[in-house]
Amino acid sequence: MSTSQRVLSIQSHVTYGYVGGKAAVFPLQCLGYDVDVVNTVNFSNHSGYGRFGGTRTSASELRQILQTMEENQFPDPSRLLTGYIPGPEALSVVQELASKLRKRHPELVYLLDPVMGDSGALYVSPSVVCIYKSMLRLATVITPNWFEVETLTSVRIEDPQSLRDAIGILHEEYQVPNVVVSSIPMKPWLAKFLPDDIPKDQPTDLLCISSSRGNPGKNSVVHACTVPLIPGYFSGVGDLFSALILAHFDPDGKSPLPDAVGKALSKTHDIIRLTNAHAQTLDEADRTTTDDELDRKDPMRLVRRMRGRELRLIQGQDIIRGEGSSREMKVWEKFW
Amino acid sequence: MSTSQRVLSIQSHVTYGYVGGKAAVFPLQCLGYDVDVVNTVNFSNHSGYGRFGGTRTSASELRQILQTMEENQFPDPSRLLTGYIPGPEALSVVQELASKLRKRHPELVYLLDPVMGDSGALYVSPSVVCIYKSMLRLATVITPNWFEVETLTSVRIEDPQSLRDAIGILHEEYQVPNVVVSSIPMKPWLAKFLPDDIPKDQPTDLLCISSSRGNPGKNSVVHACTVPLIPGYFSGVGDLFSALILAHFDPDGKSPLPDAVGKALSKTHDIIRLTNAHAQTLDEADRTTTDDELDRKDPMRLVRRMRGRELRLIQGQDIIRGEGSSREMKVWEKFW
Repeated sequence: MSTSQRVLSIQSHVTYGYVGGKAAVFPLQCLGYDVDVVNTVNFSNHSGYGRFGGTRTSASELRQILQTMEENQFPDPSRLLTGYIPGPEALSVVQELASKLRKRHPELVYLLDPVMGDSGALYVSPSVVCIYKSMLRLATVITPNWFEVETLTSVRIEDPQSLRDAIGILHEEYQVPNVVVSSIPMKPWLAKFLPDDIPKDQPTDLLCISSSRGNPGKNSVVHACTVPLIPGYFSGVGDLFSALILAHFDPDGKSPLPDAVGKALSKTHDIIRLTNAHAQTLDEADRTTTDDELDRKDPMRLVRRMRGRELRLIQGQDIIRGEGSSREMKVWEKFW
Repeated sequence: MSTSQRVLSIQSHVTYGYVGGKAAVFPLQCLGYDVDVVNTVNFSNHSGYGRFGGTRTSASELRQILQTMEENQFPDPSRLLTGYIPGPEALSVVQELASKLRKRHPELVYLLDPVMGDSGALYVSPSVVCIYKSMLRLATVITPNWFEVETLTSVRIEDPQSLRDAIGILHEEYQVPNVVVSSIPMKPWLAKFLPDDIPKDQPTDLLCISSSRGNPGKNSVVHACTVPLIPGYFSGVGDLFSALILAHFDPDGKSPLPDAVGKALSKTHDIIRLTNAHAQTLDEADRTTTDDELDRKDPMRLVRRMRGRELRLIQGQDIIRGEGSSREMKVWEKFW
């Protein structure tokens, strides 16, 4: 990897804990990238704590920062990473920028994480969805979760054909070269659909799929891998995972997407394991299970749990820098 | 060093380049600290470029972030680092916080960099000076530059006695346990005053002085070291230096301040050397000399020079993590 690569990272900032830019920037820096950091919000902590303070960066503030960088003729980034961007106005500013960079540098590596919602619920304004749809063609890699794939494609994924439809729409209609969907719960139809040589040790295993568009008129090449579930919710995992894919993506490599995803999966999983091991050492009160009803009665119960589950990025920085392990993404011959 | 230490860093944020938090946070993280990051401004780049865009964080935004962290009962930091804070209202919010943390944790390590100005000119509002004066007694270590020492003590330093007066005022009147002043140009009276065993190879050498208060009624223990000048101006050096002192300061060590300053000096100097070596490889147009008149005629001349002199922190991260070299701060027996 060249040591002179710049990443422009546009996502949220929190003072305490590791989500958004706090989960992405340090790993990118450890892996040798100069990171230009634009904060789309400045909050005390992530919203999962229930209580958070601070402000969103307005569209005009974003525009001012980006325009000044343009006027100062700072070197354009070779890679662009965008994550949580609150509201359609701010997102439009980012779209303009991505569009300009793509025009100027066809070789730009742009990882777009269309952060919109999870588990069936949007947490951005619906107008954001349309803007993301029009931005997809600017991306090199996108990393939507299952719900975001459904939202972007308007396909409800419930069997092999609907999964093929959704992935097909992303490649064909939206012209996305590379799609990665991770942390997919192993539904029975999915387990049956998976090729035999992809291990499914446990019904709780999570699935990760990557799909790279090949030559025009040809089907995409799909890879998959399963990862053991570590129970409980950890925030910032998606942000870390996307940053690691971007960091390890080698456009000139033999199989750039599966290689990068394999490394990112392995490192992300190891960081979660480290975090989980740490959480187990905490007082019982700080490692309560997820229980909305109990959390409502005692908001500090949620806060304590979240605190104990902040990613151990600093303690795990050798994992991030490591050259070692990689999960093997196996080709899924009969996907199409 | 414990791996569970938290630093709360309150200073400026720039998207492009390495000053303020961008110069301090990554080194602290590399050295194993969880860093809670509060941005006092969100700018495109540092003001030395002439043109910069973005906004200052208001006092009420700062207060909101800090209050929410308090309400969420996040663990208090074991170390506090404060740098550039624009305006008296925002600084008062930080003062309140520092005062609360100091009361709650007498063992708090607080490095206060009273960023107010340089080379005879203030770049903050004069009302900031008074607030800094009242904050000094909260600090464990302060890292003013020469001009800031003069401003805080109202002593014009021009001979050994006035230097003793200024250092004495900081320890006695303002109750600061540890003072570090670096990048002091080697004036003839200073070279003559220095003990013989501190090498002064070149008249351009820069001097660094540290002074630690001992028992009540006793004079402080002063150490000094010279560092070769690398010509030209590099931004963010003070911010990096302060962060490294904080990172290496071991309150239980045998000589905590000189040890930390020796390591910080060595690493900072090596990063500047790396940056300077890189700057030499640039096109001639990007490594112009400092010349205010020419810069006024062509503002991009200044921008190009600044760009080429952004600290090579990412490329030099092994220096930051290194256990190796340290400059020896020598005791200055006859200072008093």
